[in-house]
Amino acid sequence: MNTVAIFGVGLIGGSFALALRKAGFTGRIIGVSSPETIRRALDLGVVDEGLPSREAAQTADLLYLAQPISRILELLAELDPWVRPEALITDVGSTKSTIVERAVGTISRCQFLGGHPMAGREQRGVEAAEADLFQGRPYVLTPRAPAELETSMVHDFTGWIDKIGAFRLVLDAAEHDRVVAYTSHLPQLASTAIAALLEGRAEPQTRVFGPALVDATRLALSSFDIWGDILITNQQSVQTALQSYIAKLTELSRVLDLDPSRMREHFERAAKFAAKVRDSS
Amino acid sequence: MNTVAIFGVGLIGGSFALALRKAGFTGRIIGVSSPETIRRALDLGVVDEGLPSREAAQTADLLYLAQPISRILELLAELDPWVRPEALITDVGSTKSTIVERAVGTISRCQFLGGHPMAGREQRGVEAAEADLFQGRPYVLTPRAPAELETSMVHDFTGWIDKIGAFRLVLDAAEHDRVVAYTSHLPQLASTAIAALLEGRAEPQTRVFGPALVDATRLALSSFDIWGDILITNQQSVQTALQSYIAKLTELSRVLDLDPSRMREHFERAAKFAAKVRDSS
Repeated sequence: MNTVAIFGVGLIGGSFALALRKAGFTGRIIGVSSPETIRRALDLGVVDEGLPSREAAQTADLLYLAQPISRILELLAELDPWVRPEALITDVGSTKSTIVERAVGTISRCQFLGGHPMAGREQRGVEAAEADLFQGRPYVLTPRAPAELETSMVHDFTGWIDKIGAFRLVLDAAEHDRVVAYTSHLPQLASTAIAALLEGRAEPQTRVFGPALVDATRLALSSFDIWGDILITNQQSVQTALQSYIAKLTELSRVLDLDPSRMREHFERAAKFAAKVRDSS
Repeated sequence: MNTVAIFGVGLIGGSFALALRKAGFTGRIIGVSSPETIRRALDLGVVDEGLPSREAAQTADLLYLAQPISRILELLAELDPWVRPEALITDVGSTKSTIVERAVGTISRCQFLGGHPMAGREQRGVEAAEADLFQGRPYVLTPRAPAELETSMVHDFTGWIDKIGAFRLVLDAAEHDRVVAYTSHLPQLASTAIAALLEGRAEPQTRVFGPALVDATRLALSSFDIWGDILITNQQSVQTALQSYIAKLTELSRVLDLDPSRMREHFERAAKFAAKVRDSS
C-alpha cells in the first residue's frame, strides 16, 4: 500500500491520514475534497496533494471513502471504471447494509470492504482531525464472507488499522446496523429529542441546569447533513430501537407512579451497563 | 461568618469547604459525617475538625446541609433547638419544595434559606471534592419572600457564593422544581433508560459503540441513594417531563416513518438549544 486516496478530508478522513503518518506510513496521501478543504488540509499537513476523483482513483492502492453516506453511494456508482484491479476500496459510513449492497452491484474491477471506525468528536471538519482519534476505538469491518479478509490488500489495510491503535471487529453488515441502531443512533435521537423538547420552552431552562444537561445535549449538536443519511439507511432498526426506548421510558414512568422504590433495580441495571461501557472503552 | 459546619462532607459539601478556603475564608470549618469520612476529609485538609451534629449546630454561623434529601429532611426536624439565633441554615438538595416546606414547619429559632448549587462530577465522595467545582455554575436560592435575601447573614453567605465563582439565581421553590424536572431529572432518566435497555441485550453492544454511548450513559452511573429522594420529592413534575419526552420521541418516530427529511427541523431546533446551553455554561 503505497498510495492512499482519502475521499472526503473531514474529521474521519483527515484523522485517518494523520494516524497513518504517525504510525509510520511513508507513501503518498491524496485528498479528494472541495478546493477550500484541500487548501486547509494542505496547510495543516494532512494530505500531500489534492486531486479530482478520477485521477485519485486511477493511482490509489487504497481508496478511503470518508464522506456522508449518500455521497459514498454516489461515488460507488462512479469509481469502478477508474480503479486499478489490485486496489482496495473501503468506506467509513455509519450504516453498512445499503453501502455493501451498492458496492456489490457497482464494484467489479477491484475489491470492496465495508468499514466503520467508531470514533468521533464534538467538532467536525479537517481542523478537528487528530492522529489519535482511533486509538483504543473499535474499527468494524463488514465482509460478505470471511475469505474477503484474506486478500493481500486487506491484510495490508488491517495491519494499518492495528498500527493506528484501533481494535478490529468483524460483523455482518445487517448485524452491525441492528447493533448501532441501539448504541449510536438511539443515543443520538434521545439527545436530539431532549434538546428539541427544551428548545422553545420558557427562558430559565437555559440557565438553571448543571453539567447533566451539557452531557445530555452534546449529541444534539450533530448535523442532519450526516444524520439524515444514517436514519434513512437504517430506518427499520432505528424504529425498533426507538420503540424499545419509548417502552422502557413508559415502564419507568409506571414504576415511578406505583412504587418509586422499585426504580432502584432499573438504576442498578443501568449503572452496571454504564460501568461495562467504561471498562471496554 | 466565622464558623461553618458542613453536614455531609461528600462531593458538594467537601467542594464548598475547599472553595471557601480558596476564596479566602479564614474561619473554622467543621465537618459532620461518618467517622470514616471525617478521617478522610481531615487527611485531605477539607475540614478543620469533625463534630457530632448537635455540637456542630451549637457553634456554627452557617449550617451547610449537603446530604441526600431524605437526610436533610430528618436533620431539619432536629436542628432547631440547637442552633444559635443569628445562624443561617442552608441546604444543597436537588429538589426544593419539600425541603423548604419542611423548614417552615421545623426551623423557628434561626433563618433558613434553600439552595441548589448546580454543579457535579461523575465521581462522588470527599476524594472527588475540588475548590473550583462551583466556578461559572448556577447557584439557585429559593427564598419564600424577597426580604429573606436581605438579612445580614444571607448577605454574608451570598457574598461567599459570589467569591467561589458561582452565579446566583433566585427562584420560587416550586418553579425551581418544575424547571429541573426538565433540565436535570429528565436527562438522568433518559440516560438510565438507555443503559437499562441495553443491559442484558446481546454481547456486541458493549463493544460496538463509539463515544456517543459513553456520553449517553454517563448519568446512568448515578446512585439511586441520591436519585430515589429526588424522584420521590419531585414526582409530579418528573412525570410531566417524562410524558413530554415520550411524546417528543413518538413524534420523531412518526416523522421518521412518514418523511425522514422532515427530521431536519427537529435536528436544527435541537442543535440550537444545545448551542445555547454551551453559550451560557
